Amino acid sequence: MADAEVIPLEKLRDPQREPLLRDVMGEVLRRTRREQDRTLADVAEDAQVSTPYLSEIERGRKEASSEVLGAVCRALGIDLVDLVSRTHIDLTERAAQRREAEQSRLLRVRPTRFDPRNSPVALAA
Amino acid sequence: MADAEVIPLEKLRDPQREPLLRDVMGEVLRRTRREQDRTLADVAEDAQVSTPYLSEIERGRKEASSEVLGAVCRALGIDLVDLVSRTHIDLTERAAQRREAEQSRLLRVRPTRFDPRNSPVALAA
Repeated sequence: MADAEVIPLEKLRDPQREPLLRDVMGEVLRRTRREQDRTLADVAEDAQVSTPYLSEIERGRKEASSEVLGAVCRALGIDLVDLVSRTHIDLTERAAQRREAEQSRLLRVRPTRFDPRNSPVALAA
Repeated sequence: MADAEVIPLEKLRDPQREPLLRDVMGEVLRRTRREQDRTLADVAEDAQVSTPYLSEIERGRKEASSEVLGAVCRALGIDLVDLVSRTHIDLTERAAQRREAEQSRLLRVRPTRFDPRNSPVALAA
């Protein structure tokens, strides 16, 4: 009998697999800046933060305070509600991708787990 | 002529009047906890943070790291996407309230600004 990968139900909602807020917000900020064809240095100057710091925020390496987030939003000409809205869309898409990945893992596992050769009927034969 | 309050157009979108993210998220976390009839101490224990710290997060006094936000969400049995979704709804409602407040300020100002006694016709009479 081939080893069947058993996925405990808890794993299907493994909290570790949920992204961190700063990762998603950083990505949204970077995408918004690139959509505007602006450089890190340009936006950092407008937001009155250093360029390396903004870069770290965009890459989710540094946690931005609410004040810094507000300043970066203003530098990008968006409202905080826009940032949160885009973050929500991203998180929803990521959640859908995680569900799909989990479902495809389950589908790969199922044939082994339900192999008729391992069924009580086959074993008794 | 009564003093008319002049509102510069920039003021209608005063960035200072936008709330801070931690204020709104804190309120959402507090409301979610209360909806569940749970105490600060109970949720703090589940999230493995101190009760005073969770209280400060809920009141927007402390900036929670993404890891702490994730832990508090898990303690409340919600996903990060739920927190962001509720925060988005709150921010949208607050923005609508700000717009309404601004419009009512404009309406209060208008009668003075357009007082016919101050019109060139009346002044010439």
